[in-house]
Amino acid sequence: MSEFLAIGRAALQSQPFSTLIGASLAHFAPGEAVIEVPISEQVKQQNGFVHGGVVSYCADNVITFAGGSVLGTGVVTSEFKINYLRPAIGDKLVARASVLHAGKTQAVCRCEVYAVTGGEEKLCAAAQGTIARIGTDTPK
Amino acid sequence: MSEFLAIGRAALQSQPFSTLIGASLAHFAPGEAVIEVPISEQVKQQNGFVHGGVVSYCADNVITFAGGSVLGTGVVTSEFKINYLRPAIGDKLVARASVLHAGKTQAVCRCEVYAVTGGEEKLCAAAQGTIARIGTDTPK
Amino acid sequence: MSEFLAIGRAALQSQPFSTLIGASLAHFAPGEAVIEVPISEQVKQQNGFVHGGVVSYCADNVITFAGGSVLGTGVVTSEFKINYLRPAIGDKLVARASVLHAGKTQAVCRCEVYAVTGGEEKLCAAAQGTIARIGTDTPK
Amino acid sequence: MSEFLAIGRAALQSQPFSTLIGASLAHFAPGEAVIEVPISEQVKQQNGFVHGGVVSYCADNVITFAGGSVLGTGVVTSEFKINYLRPAIGDKLVARASVLHAGKTQAVCRCEVYAVTGGEEKLCAAAQGTIARIGTDTPK
Repeated sequence: MSEFLAIGRAALQSQPFSTLIGASLAHFAPGEAVIEVPISEQVKQQNGFVHGGVVSYCADNVITFAGGSVLGTGVVTSEFKINYLRPAIGDKLVARASVLHAGKTQAVCRCEVYAVTGGEEKLCAAAQGTIARIGTDTPK
Repeated sequence: MSEFLAIGRAALQSQPFSTLIGASLAHFAPGEAVIEVPISEQVKQQNGFVHGGVVSYCADNVITFAGGSVLGTGVVTSEFKINYLRPAIGDKLVARASVLHAGKTQAVCRCEVYAVTGGEEKLCAAAQGTIARIGTDTPK
Repeated sequence: MSEFLAIGRAALQSQPFSTLIGASLAHFAPGEAVIEVPISEQVKQQNGFVHGGVVSYCADNVITFAGGSVLGTGVVTSEFKINYLRPAIGDKLVARASVLHAGKTQAVCRCEVYAVTGGEEKLCAAAQGTIARIGTDTPK
Repeated sequence: MSEFLAIGRAALQSQPFSTLIGASLAHFAPGEAVIEVPISEQVKQQNGFVHGGVVSYCADNVITFAGGSVLGTGVVTSEFKINYLRPAIGDKLVARASVLHAGKTQAVCRCEVYAVTGGEEKLCAAAQGTIARIGTDTPK
């Protein structure tokens, strides 16, 4: 395991909510991140699909990691937009993000979230948003 | 408690993920919904703030309820956009949504998410998105 | 006319594209801006409605002005999201924006775009986005 | 020229606003569209860059065409989100869109907008949004 990935995994494991739902960092490299979440009963909504809020968590978090991979530690998602494309059903969610453009204090990233059943992936959601270094703006 | 609110609460309680994090429906009326989530350790990220993914869950879910209040049951959020405005710290999150425009099969809603400490509310996030009846579109 | 409004109008008139389509600043005060665009043939699409691109121009520009009203001159819209709610038909577009939250270098704003026929206004679009001071980030 | 492209070009030319700013359809095939806009003085803002509203027009329109390429004629953009990445300076804007997912009545598309100077392209903006068939929803 690369040192880069080890640092990323330590960061993810320090998030109580991410450990609550069993998220793991499958890949982490400059400009890229992949987060996986097992599909258990507890992440579902009333129809048996993964709750949209969990899908949006994946999107939010994987773009934060992708942005952080180029901006450094101490970043947050400042905004994002997500389109849900299909109900998320299967064994696990896989969210893959990449950096579209990076400046010194902000990066714009995209991600796609897939639901995986056996070896088959189906695209469930797509997102785009901005990652910013903490402390680059403060309330007036 | 109104019958409307009772129906909404039953819907929220049927979502395993919503019960996992202790979400409750504080208000539900035609065109309006309010969801609350207690801020416990398990919903936080590494800096002690509520995880952005939980804030986005609140936004996603409260606009689904607001949209469902005018479109009827069997709705999902098809897309939304969220801006994070401040770190969410305090006792609970309160997410308030209202319907901007409703058609027969879709509604566009907005919401604001507040972090409440004692009696004081601070605006932490704002979102806007589309709610659609399930089954109004299907993959080709 | 207030000095504030005079400064805003000079800024709008210095934008060749805004003058091309006849945009005017109807109101400008700290945290608020209103831009109007007359509905002429040239701003329409093939069905006789105002082109969505012109509606999105109104949204983009009015939130830039609202953001600039609290951040100072030298600002740009860094991102926004728009939902189209109804076809825009009538005499003029009126776009009203306000600031939801402002820091030192960024502000998050919302706006609504109305189509006005005679004295009657119909809500046509709603947007939300981020305004940033120019030069607060630069490509690496 | 393919019949597909000819139909697309006729559609674009029937939009008075698109002809006002000289937009042309450079490519049109199932799931894909490319729109170009020459950078003349009239599409600029006060700093000499292309006005953000014109960039957002490109994004809005090119995803409408991409969506229409799979949904058929009679479509509109129902919502989109755009991130501005760099000031748009150069000879022309080139906006390229593709379909991420299509159902019977809606398609979700992405696009990138480039500013071209000589032969060099720079990514200026990225967008994601929903295209819908007209008449699939109507106000209550």
